[in-house]
Amino acid sequence: MSQEQIESKRKQIDNLNLELLRLLSERGRIASEIGAIQLQIGFSSYDPKREMEMLQALTAANEGPFDDAAVKSLFKNIFQASMAVGVKKEKPKLLTSRGDRQDTVVMIGDVPVGGDHPPVLISGPCAIESEEQFSMTAEFVASRGVRLIRGGAFKPRSSPYSFQGLGEPALKWARAACDRVGAYFVAEIMDAGDLDLCLDYVDVLQIGARNSQNFSLLKAVGRTDRPVLLKRGLSGTIEEWIMSAEYIMAGGNPNVMLCERGIRTYEKYTRNTLDISAVALAKLETHLPVFVDATHSGGRRDLLVPLTKAGLAAGADGIMVEVHPNPAVALSDQKQQMDFETFDDYLTQVGF
Amino acid sequence: MSQEQIESKRKQIDNLNLELLRLLSERGRIASEIGAIQLQIGFSSYDPKREMEMLQALTAANEGPFDDAAVKSLFKNIFQASMAVGVKKEKPKLLTSRGDRQDTVVMIGDVPVGGDHPPVLISGPCAIESEEQFSMTAEFVASRGVRLIRGGAFKPRSSPYSFQGLGEPALKWARAACDRVGAYFVAEIMDAGDLDLCLDYVDVLQIGARNSQNFSLLKAVGRTDRPVLLKRGLSGTIEEWIMSAEYIMAGGNPNVMLCERGIRTYEKYTRNTLDISAVALAKLETHLPVFVDATHSGGRRDLLVPLTKAGLAAGADGIMVEVHPNPAVALSDQKQQMDFETFDDYLTQVGF
Amino acid sequence: MSQEQIESKRKQIDNLNLELLRLLSERGRIASEIGAIQLQIGFSSYDPKREMEMLQALTAANEGPFDDAAVKSLFKNIFQASMAVGVKKEKPKLLTSRGDRQDTVVMIGDVPVGGDHPPVLISGPCAIESEEQFSMTAEFVASRGVRLIRGGAFKPRSSPYSFQGLGEPALKWARAACDRVGAYFVAEIMDAGDLDLCLDYVDVLQIGARNSQNFSLLKAVGRTDRPVLLKRGLSGTIEEWIMSAEYIMAGGNPNVMLCERGIRTYEKYTRNTLDISAVALAKLETHLPVFVDATHSGGRRDLLVPLTKAGLAAGADGIMVEVHPNPAVALSDQKQQMDFETFDDYLTQVGF
Amino acid sequence: MSQEQIESKRKQIDNLNLELLRLLSERGRIASEIGAIQLQIGFSSYDPKREMEMLQALTAANEGPFDDAAVKSLFKNIFQASMAVGVKKEKPKLLTSRGDRQDTVVMIGDVPVGGDHPPVLISGPCAIESEEQFSMTAEFVASRGVRLIRGGAFKPRSSPYSFQGLGEPALKWARAACDRVGAYFVAEIMDAGDLDLCLDYVDVLQIGARNSQNFSLLKAVGRTDRPVLLKRGLSGTIEEWIMSAEYIMAGGNPNVMLCERGIRTYEKYTRNTLDISAVALAKLETHLPVFVDATHSGGRRDLLVPLTKAGLAAGADGIMVEVHPNPAVALSDQKQQMDFETFDDYLTQVGF
Repeated sequence: MSQEQIESKRKQIDNLNLELLRLLSERGRIASEIGAIQLQIGFSSYDPKREMEMLQALTAANEGPFDDAAVKSLFKNIFQASMAVGVKKEKPKLLTSRGDRQDTVVMIGDVPVGGDHPPVLISGPCAIESEEQFSMTAEFVASRGVRLIRGGAFKPRSSPYSFQGLGEPALKWARAACDRVGAYFVAEIMDAGDLDLCLDYVDVLQIGARNSQNFSLLKAVGRTDRPVLLKRGLSGTIEEWIMSAEYIMAGGNPNVMLCERGIRTYEKYTRNTLDISAVALAKLETHLPVFVDATHSGGRRDLLVPLTKAGLAAGADGIMVEVHPNPAVALSDQKQQMDFETFDDYLTQVGF
Repeated sequence: MSQEQIESKRKQIDNLNLELLRLLSERGRIASEIGAIQLQIGFSSYDPKREMEMLQALTAANEGPFDDAAVKSLFKNIFQASMAVGVKKEKPKLLTSRGDRQDTVVMIGDVPVGGDHPPVLISGPCAIESEEQFSMTAEFVASRGVRLIRGGAFKPRSSPYSFQGLGEPALKWARAACDRVGAYFVAEIMDAGDLDLCLDYVDVLQIGARNSQNFSLLKAVGRTDRPVLLKRGLSGTIEEWIMSAEYIMAGGNPNVMLCERGIRTYEKYTRNTLDISAVALAKLETHLPVFVDATHSGGRRDLLVPLTKAGLAAGADGIMVEVHPNPAVALSDQKQQMDFETFDDYLTQVGF
Repeated sequence: MSQEQIESKRKQIDNLNLELLRLLSERGRIASEIGAIQLQIGFSSYDPKREMEMLQALTAANEGPFDDAAVKSLFKNIFQASMAVGVKKEKPKLLTSRGDRQDTVVMIGDVPVGGDHPPVLISGPCAIESEEQFSMTAEFVASRGVRLIRGGAFKPRSSPYSFQGLGEPALKWARAACDRVGAYFVAEIMDAGDLDLCLDYVDVLQIGARNSQNFSLLKAVGRTDRPVLLKRGLSGTIEEWIMSAEYIMAGGNPNVMLCERGIRTYEKYTRNTLDISAVALAKLETHLPVFVDATHSGGRRDLLVPLTKAGLAAGADGIMVEVHPNPAVALSDQKQQMDFETFDDYLTQVGF
Repeated sequence: MSQEQIESKRKQIDNLNLELLRLLSERGRIASEIGAIQLQIGFSSYDPKREMEMLQALTAANEGPFDDAAVKSLFKNIFQASMAVGVKKEKPKLLTSRGDRQDTVVMIGDVPVGGDHPPVLISGPCAIESEEQFSMTAEFVASRGVRLIRGGAFKPRSSPYSFQGLGEPALKWARAACDRVGAYFVAEIMDAGDLDLCLDYVDVLQIGARNSQNFSLLKAVGRTDRPVLLKRGLSGTIEEWIMSAEYIMAGGNPNVMLCERGIRTYEKYTRNTLDISAVALAKLETHLPVFVDATHSGGRRDLLVPLTKAGLAAGADGIMVEVHPNPAVALSDQKQQMDFETFDDYLTQVGF
């Protein structure tokens, strides 16, 4: 008998469901009309004061069986869904969002990155330590087919007493060396105030992990059209990383490339934990090229080959690894840069 | 003019809101009636198959403006709210939940823990290393007013080659020493198979961080009425910690005490990160006594005083610290146990 | 002139270095002889009391320029290095250590895992929910070439009110189904007390993440020779994971396979963060086969293909994924199990 | 007999220990002399090339029983200890280091912060949303004795489409309101380019968590003498946090206050995890005043009282909490700001 009771009550619920759907849909349509008007007259469609008044009216009218908190929660969901209707009609949610967009291909000079193009390799020393050191490295990696050469002139260091980079002279040496070997120059920019200087010398502006939410800097590079390589923050969420890319695109610069570089976890065998899922998700959620920084994510030379292979398998469009003529005496990252012989071995193993 | 348009449309929405509330409430009432019948005939009120059918019917009927995913999401919320109605009518959500319950006071012999009783101190060595070592420590701490004395006979160690504890002999020595000084004995149990043995000797069964989700063990101690000190997992969420307590209470044992012992994070200056918010939240969300293990959370002697003070300020009902006659030669936790002189100093500083 | 001074002093240091090396080596030889004698008479080579006495003698004799803390630290390093000499002479450091060992190949019936054998796939439902559900799944996956079929009869669940698994009946159904399709049965064991039962039905004993440091359970399975699939803890370090394997091997069971299943981090887009470096490091540091649990690490169906590819690229010997006839109504893991059609698609994409 | 053998060998070791200590001390003295000369002629005492050569000479001379890795490790420790000798003689390690320094007291106008002064309270809205909103709040909190009032004119937001702050007009309103009520104005600075503007209006420059390693900004505020409130990074280590303070002090600004604001962990019940040990350690390791941001660390109004109490118990010199006339309609941080009534209640409970 109780099964029959249940069946009968379930029918009632089925009817209520459909009636609720009808009302919700009507509400959604009207809300999206309001949103469209507000947009015309320059207001955000989100109005917290109005929401508060609606919730007060609803809890005032509430006679159970839901308690007021449940009513508020249900209607907050309805408000959000209604707002989302408006948003979607007008434009794709975010400039970075995959939606039904094709892969973005960023051109670095004549080198295409992303889409169906083969993965590219960025390599070079952690820091530019002398004209000779960069020059030697550039010539060597270029001779192995590398077209994108990295090297830091401004170094973000935890300690004010550590080597901070050689600044403009380093940029000049690197520019000259890259021109000589026919490569493009990738360098980190640490401050919006250095933008003009960097634009004179650098082909790809790298935003480092510590500046991943330096919004002034993101806005500044967003006002140029120079390709940007945006690292994920030390403990940035995937969502924050994508929103930082959105800052750059919202400023007008479409040439954004994402770079996963490992996140900070409790694990001590590695310097950071490469979040390989983030590589796959960045490809799913955005249309931008995605790199893996194999050097910093593991922080160990013996992981460069497996992390590179894993990154490519997960869909990365490019890999970054550090190469130095003599890692043992490097001014930074001694444990993780490759010397020339190791780099040759690396290229063979990963099949670049 | 557009402001007028908005106002008129907002009125429509106000009416729709009230109509939706009416239908939702009706739906909630019927759903809770179904839940009551199902409970009588022994079924869970959650029926994933039925939910799937309802969602299929709704998306089949959906004509926009919400897309199917939004419809499903809205109705999942409605289903959940409806189920919650039924649940609340019948019983408080969880046995551990605060609800409108008074603080639970756990009696350890004649020592009350929790409620308005003054905070208690558990101390003693990390591991029982010899009859003499435990005896000396017990006499010393008892002379300072400590009524709850800890000491491990079974030690959870990462390595199979580390000192694993002395087992039953250690339990015997400790039982005798505690009886002699008029104190109660707190010791870790690591396996359900050791329960009978432990019940013979131990007054408070401690469940360690590594066994915080050893559900067999939780169920086993839940079948006794012996007081249990349940540590949070190495990286347990507050929710998981409370649910582990629920395992014990669901088995019939009301004498559960929670113990925050620090969580695993990236920070290297401390062994673990004491989550002081967890202490406050455990008091807000449950009615159980809450301890802070000041020794393991920081892993540093110089933090014992401030972490104890902070724990008590956040509402802890008790503190656990390790004391050893000669920490420098201890078989475990050398860096964090206090010697007798330091313990006296500690007592003075924290005001126990 | 100062450059000359420096050169002359550096020569002095060069000589002191060599003299220090000579004395250290002599000390190392004598210490290792003591260690060998102690081993014969049944003592550990580590003697904290002796260390303390030596440090006291040294700081008593210390006249600077090092302060006492620096002297202690230098000599602690020397003590440790000396002990390590003894250890290495007698035996390889750990049973799990790679050292110069070949890859271990674990035979599951006639299925070899590890070494140069092609990677294997473990699949099947999260939980065994009925005879029919398991049977259908087993037949389907076996028809696709799967030889190792998983299914839980004991389920570790955060809540005591969640589905806890069907126990022995489920083991029976699964055993029969696996025999019928010619496959081997992989199932989780949660308690040392269930070992005899599990040995009757199960071909591969899985130790779950929550029991990764349940040392009683590790010791129990170590006393058998049944293949064990050992998951890494929720927030286990790589070192802890390997030491848990060492517990099993130290008990006499060489048939240990490691399984990376993602670690707990702050990231919210994924259920856990697959630590792909851990896969590579487990292969470098041990000689054991390594699996990737692609289902639990990401917790998202859309990550199964990229995480599988990345795992294999990093060197994994096997992959585990969950398959269910109707994931939407599964009693656990609804969002991440594949239905049969999706599984076919998965096999095509990953090339198994 | 073997015990005798051991004793005889131990005597040999005792002699070797003393001989080693003598040579190490001599080596330490010479190394510190070299360091002093190098300092005079302007070189760093760390010379990786020289270290490499010494290690090569040592491993070339190594005949066992230590393997080359052990020899390198032992001597790396000796090199480091020798360098430390030189360093300590010349100057205290870091400007921020406690050493034997007294507590720094930072004067904010006539309000002393740190040392033995009673803890101070910073409060005010998350963001300055209008002249009226800030003015109302300032008048209210000032009437309760608050002398330091916060309010953001530049807001770091994950999304470029979120409210970014009202900029200079907001700074003007706040300046005027603070002057009117006799309070000092605390505001976040996000970019070195905004420094001149902020110096015109702001009494305490706050560096937010996302800019905790924006080294350009740290250097810029280091060139002023304006008090700085430096938050710890989202996942900053305690060491990194202190080194960021060192950047400011190294620039010449001694008026640095540290602010713990919770770190990012896996826990979901709180927005961040307040690291209470970090408060105690910042007091132990530095001489600077330390604040606790009770609002952002928990992200929950119901934690403001316990986290404030815990912070003060652990030694904090000040607390920051957010107050807003109507949190429900705030443009940011709705869930965690207090309204005026709640703030009065808070003051009563924490005893400010």
